Amino acid sequence: MATWATLDCSSAQLAQLLGPNNTAAADFICSQFAAVSSKLSDTAHAVDTTYLLFSAYLVFSMQLGFAMLCAGSVRAKNTMNIMLTNVLDAATGGIFYYLFGFAFAFGGPSNGFIGRHFFGLKDIPSDSFDYSNFLYQWAFAIAAAGITSGSIAERTQFVAYLIYSSFLTGFVYPVVSHWFWSTDGWASAANTQNLLFGSGVIDFAGSGVVHMVGGIAGLWGAFIEGPRIGRFDHSGRSVALRGHSASLVVLGTFLLWFGWYGFNPGSFNKILSPYGTGSMSYYGQWSAVGRTAVTTTLAGCTAALTTLFGKRILSGHWNVTDVCNGLLGGFAAITAGCSVVEPWAAIVCGFVAAIVLISCNKLAEKVKYDDPLEAAQLHGGCGAWGIIFTALFATKKYVNEVYGGKSDRPYGLFMGGGGKMLGAHLIQIVVIIGWVSATMGPLFFVLHKLKLLRISAEDEMAGMDLTRHGGFAYVYHDDEDSEKPTTIQLRKVEPNASSTPTSV
Amino acid sequence: MATWATLDCSSAQLAQLLGPNNTAAADFICSQFAAVSSKLSDTAHAVDTTYLLFSAYLVFSMQLGFAMLCAGSVRAKNTMNIMLTNVLDAATGGIFYYLFGFAFAFGGPSNGFIGRHFFGLKDIPSDSFDYSNFLYQWAFAIAAAGITSGSIAERTQFVAYLIYSSFLTGFVYPVVSHWFWSTDGWASAANTQNLLFGSGVIDFAGSGVVHMVGGIAGLWGAFIEGPRIGRFDHSGRSVALRGHSASLVVLGTFLLWFGWYGFNPGSFNKILSPYGTGSMSYYGQWSAVGRTAVTTTLAGCTAALTTLFGKRILSGHWNVTDVCNGLLGGFAAITAGCSVVEPWAAIVCGFVAAIVLISCNKLAEKVKYDDPLEAAQLHGGCGAWGIIFTALFATKKYVNEVYGGKSDRPYGLFMGGGGKMLGAHLIQIVVIIGWVSATMGPLFFVLHKLKLLRISAEDEMAGMDLTRHGGFAYVYHDDEDSEKPTTIQLRKVEPNASSTPTSV
Amino acid sequence: MATWATLDCSSAQLAQLLGPNNTAAADFICSQFAAVSSKLSDTAHAVDTTYLLFSAYLVFSMQLGFAMLCAGSVRAKNTMNIMLTNVLDAATGGIFYYLFGFAFAFGGPSNGFIGRHFFGLKDIPSDSFDYSNFLYQWAFAIAAAGITSGSIAERTQFVAYLIYSSFLTGFVYPVVSHWFWSTDGWASAANTQNLLFGSGVIDFAGSGVVHMVGGIAGLWGAFIEGPRIGRFDHSGRSVALRGHSASLVVLGTFLLWFGWYGFNPGSFNKILSPYGTGSMSYYGQWSAVGRTAVTTTLAGCTAALTTLFGKRILSGHWNVTDVCNGLLGGFAAITAGCSVVEPWAAIVCGFVAAIVLISCNKLAEKVKYDDPLEAAQLHGGCGAWGIIFTALFATKKYVNEVYGGKSDRPYGLFMGGGGKMLGAHLIQIVVIIGWVSATMGPLFFVLHKLKLLRISAEDEMAGMDLTRHGGFAYVYHDDEDSEKPTTIQLRKVEPNASSTPTSV
Repeated sequence: MATWATLDCSSAQLAQLLGPNNTAAADFICSQFAAVSSKLSDTAHAVDTTYLLFSAYLVFSMQLGFAMLCAGSVRAKNTMNIMLTNVLDAATGGIFYYLFGFAFAFGGPSNGFIGRHFFGLKDIPSDSFDYSNFLYQWAFAIAAAGITSGSIAERTQFVAYLIYSSFLTGFVYPVVSHWFWSTDGWASAANTQNLLFGSGVIDFAGSGVVHMVGGIAGLWGAFIEGPRIGRFDHSGRSVALRGHSASLVVLGTFLLWFGWYGFNPGSFNKILSPYGTGSMSYYGQWSAVGRTAVTTTLAGCTAALTTLFGKRILSGHWNVTDVCNGLLGGFAAITAGCSVVEPWAAIVCGFVAAIVLISCNKLAEKVKYDDPLEAAQLHGGCGAWGIIFTALFATKKYVNEVYGGKSDRPYGLFMGGGGKMLGAHLIQIVVIIGWVSATMGPLFFVLHKLKLLRISAEDEMAGMDLTRHGGFAYVYHDDEDSEKPTTIQLRKVEPNASSTPTSV
Repeated sequence: MATWATLDCSSAQLAQLLGPNNTAAADFICSQFAAVSSKLSDTAHAVDTTYLLFSAYLVFSMQLGFAMLCAGSVRAKNTMNIMLTNVLDAATGGIFYYLFGFAFAFGGPSNGFIGRHFFGLKDIPSDSFDYSNFLYQWAFAIAAAGITSGSIAERTQFVAYLIYSSFLTGFVYPVVSHWFWSTDGWASAANTQNLLFGSGVIDFAGSGVVHMVGGIAGLWGAFIEGPRIGRFDHSGRSVALRGHSASLVVLGTFLLWFGWYGFNPGSFNKILSPYGTGSMSYYGQWSAVGRTAVTTTLAGCTAALTTLFGKRILSGHWNVTDVCNGLLGGFAAITAGCSVVEPWAAIVCGFVAAIVLISCNKLAEKVKYDDPLEAAQLHGGCGAWGIIFTALFATKKYVNEVYGGKSDRPYGLFMGGGGKMLGAHLIQIVVIIGWVSATMGPLFFVLHKLKLLRISAEDEMAGMDLTRHGGFAYVYHDDEDSEKPTTIQLRKVEPNASSTPTSV
Repeated sequence: MATWATLDCSSAQLAQLLGPNNTAAADFICSQFAAVSSKLSDTAHAVDTTYLLFSAYLVFSMQLGFAMLCAGSVRAKNTMNIMLTNVLDAATGGIFYYLFGFAFAFGGPSNGFIGRHFFGLKDIPSDSFDYSNFLYQWAFAIAAAGITSGSIAERTQFVAYLIYSSFLTGFVYPVVSHWFWSTDGWASAANTQNLLFGSGVIDFAGSGVVHMVGGIAGLWGAFIEGPRIGRFDHSGRSVALRGHSASLVVLGTFLLWFGWYGFNPGSFNKILSPYGTGSMSYYGQWSAVGRTAVTTTLAGCTAALTTLFGKRILSGHWNVTDVCNGLLGGFAAITAGCSVVEPWAAIVCGFVAAIVLISCNKLAEKVKYDDPLEAAQLHGGCGAWGIIFTALFATKKYVNEVYGGKSDRPYGLFMGGGGKMLGAHLIQIVVIIGWVSATMGPLFFVLHKLKLLRISAEDEMAGMDLTRHGGFAYVYHDDEDSEKPTTIQLRKVEPNASSTPTSV
């Protein structure tokens, strides 16, 4: 930013031009310009921080979106359980990301593998990071944990949840973000020393760093736990265990959509940076920010419509919850490349994302994998597609504008930019799968072996809200008072001997 | 914006003042000022884009508000149907507004009737439009479609919905916005060539362009379909078909209120523009933006309170859903004039809006018009009032500040500004009614004739969620599993003769 | 702001430096700098207003949060009642705060006790206040009323609600905010004449001004009315009357969290103000704003986790609604000192806040005080703790940066800043308790004596929605039509011997 605000008023040069005996006047004039420069720099800090903080607030609102989406997608008897995990993602995430997470992720200079400064926000603010950066990144970290909680919903012990969530937010996720986002990260496109394959990975807002990480973690958890009771019947046939409220699903989806405008466009961190000059002076990072909002929108819209018609053909009805998931799949996919592709390409991205999600869901059913939120399929599957998509469709112009610092960066294969970016991006997919599997897999396995992972069959049948969280989430009727916590709110029917058919 | 940032440092003039042999010094100094000017221009772009994008996000959140308001206002059996239409408003709107809509609306230079550039965002960003403008306008377009979906809720075939929604967002609405908002529009107050009656129509954020368009479209749809079964009994008496969740209604209303702060103040598009100079330098577009937020607030508050007491007198109870509708009626009315009236006038606006809404609802009952969301009454009726209100109360000062480019603009009749604006505004009302009737009326009629408009009586009784959307929106109770999609969750209990106490 | 933007280009001085006959050149150059200065000032106004308005919108979204939190926390039969009060807080607040409230609060110059300018926004915008300031402060005023409505929920006459709410928003609260926030306030840390104990009260965003005021008002209302029927059984044992929807509680809590980012960081009002110079030029109010968001987050997170484990130990289960309340208690506490403490101190603040809340709740049970939202305990108790906390942990550096205008301000006792601030803060607590008790106590008492405060026992048993608001909030089942408004939809069916088919 300092660079942008700096004016090149050279007192010596001006003195020479003004003629003899004018050194003092030159100093005076240049000092005025220095003051202007300083005020422009102040202004830029204020503008960029406003932009970043409100983006962070939007990203935070996704946590509410997740909570509502998850709540609506599980059965009523596990609503309080899943919502509590969402509240705690944010809360434990806040503490752990403050203590370690941010340091691991952005504490350069580092060895490229893990950061080592800024523990407990020591030395913040600095020339490179302010508190707003921490807040923004914290909101990202808790999103990853939120994704995972969806995969293992309705059957996981609460203590297991507390353990994996802290580990994921405080260590596993920050390390991945260091690799791909830090200026020291070994595979980061922002690496100032050495770019992987001369390209580095362009995972702009985290199709890989956030979505795949959350999704793969969820995959391991759900896989090790096995499906919910009743999810596959005795003959192995898939039985849908429908969520209890489509209204909450739609509420959550729209909130995630709303928040994604902080997630993707906000990932620029700054908005005040010109790209064009002269007659193109209207063109700058503010345009790229807007374009990113547009690509995000178009990918989601296309994925929603593709899912609408696809599921209509496959299942015979117009399904709002499937459309919601399709939409989110489109968003998860465009997240990597949102800043470096053309709007029309975002439509391609969303179209394929919907197909990827439908296919992953088919596959999951086939292998009897149960994920109540389709989180592994959606964030893992569509996230991986997004990484590949970026390596195919990133344009030369946008890559060089958004990621400067080096000329002739490789760009999308289909745009004529060669295969180097694709190589780097395939490595990202492999590395994320490997790292998350190597850390979260054993963790879930140990929890499983210690009998800390899955709840008992009785608890699962009764629902966790009653057995662990002090009651049922809903009490629509007065007679169901708190004194009888085992009374499910949709009342007891006690027909006596002479009962005749009663309709309620 | 370029104008604001430009400094008038004339190198020639300065050289003359500095005396002979100082051309180089003058060039040097003026080039420094040119650099400052350029940086000020960058800053303005960043500030204005930040302002516009976050406003766009707020307007987008209204789509969530609509979804929740609509969901809560319909019966439980049609919840998924109406929410799906709200999701699809945004999704189909995204695609169609990208392909055609924005081009029709703002693709000048045009013939004043319909735009013809920027299809698929070609040539964006330009000197006049950036991606952020598209995003902002898209959020407006989908609001219009959302209004209409409320009018025809609970009885309309899904395919009809897809057809009219695309047509409205992609063509009907963009054309209207071209007329009244584009710098080429034949009736636009921003028209740079020729102002209708020397005034043009001041429909700042769209009481007419958005609300009346959506409301009149809904009126035709609901009129052609006829009322829901049971809405009027055999003797023709009105029977309230209450929505299923007041909580969702209040949630939706507050979200719409929240989003209206993007809708009305955001319609300035830019916030960095000074109005005052010298000791008044604190006064600028930022003040007008704030004032617009205040007038919006006061109109809604007054309408809510008027409705509260009005309905208390008429119906004998304090009704929260009526208060919510009154509030929204106040907002719909102030939308046209929010930027050009005094705060006290906004109170008048809201007071009358509440009375207009109550009257329209009385009239609707009398003529057996059934609109589950009162959308035609609220957005059509209060929207029309808002257009008239603006022509009565717009102040000279504010009209000239907000709409520059010409001195001595006509302003509000009651403010001493003559009747020219009122003339233009009455024409707006007539033209919107005419255009929407001429396009949407035949469309709904053809759909009706093709039996594509209304669902069957059986489907209507059972609810669209079960028959078309794969199930009921809510499953509060475990026994209601997905295997029996026809089981309504508050299902009939049919104990057989040998029944023993059954707990459900 | 004018100060920041001003450049000190002295034409006379420059003329002297440039040498004889160069007055015109100096004038020319300095006039250019004056133009730059003016544009920098414009920019600052635009940036700061953008920042303040969007913060105001966030604070407004807390009203939605309150509505949902309250709705979820009461029994289903009183849902519409409580939501209506929340809508009307905003609406009546809008009118009264416009007419009187803002004038009482900020209408300086004053006698230090109550403001006396700006009635009906007369003379706004001025050099010190713009419309955005009014909007921001209005959103605060309605929050106070919202807090109180929670305390007296489920048993208060609607008319009583209308009376106290107007009185609180229009008079009681504005006076308190004048004392502690206005530049004329007798106890304000921003007082330009005379600081209480040389310190003034640092209640940055209103742990006292907003939260304690709302909480103490609620305390008096709930105390005078007495507990809800059934809240304590015949033997005096506490019986939990559980709220009807944990989903709404979590929704409301997250919305409040979201909105608190407008409440606390937004209380800076401006973001463009440098603190550091030279190599520290990256440091300014934008950093303090970010830090405030971080301290807010950490206090809430810590309080949530403390409550989670605390309640687990005390009650044996993991309780999501308790965690939500704990979180909010942490926010209410950090609100006073959020801008002047280190992030680690915020963790201390949140930890103690959770314990304060648990203790206040224990105490409330013991004295048979019934507060459906725990509002007096949470906002009153944790608010008071927050005031003390600030006087213990405020750092020298931050106090002087955030509250300038005087060197050597006292700061936190534990930070080595002496006891003067603590003295002032203890006085704040006493004065708020006194003032609110002296105004709201008698008001509630008179209403009580006039039999306008509490509803009848019959109404309370039946629920206010049926008796006063025209029906039940939820209709999940079609058979429950609007024709039988007295039919509660989820009621017990108790077929007697002669039962014939009964439809509910």
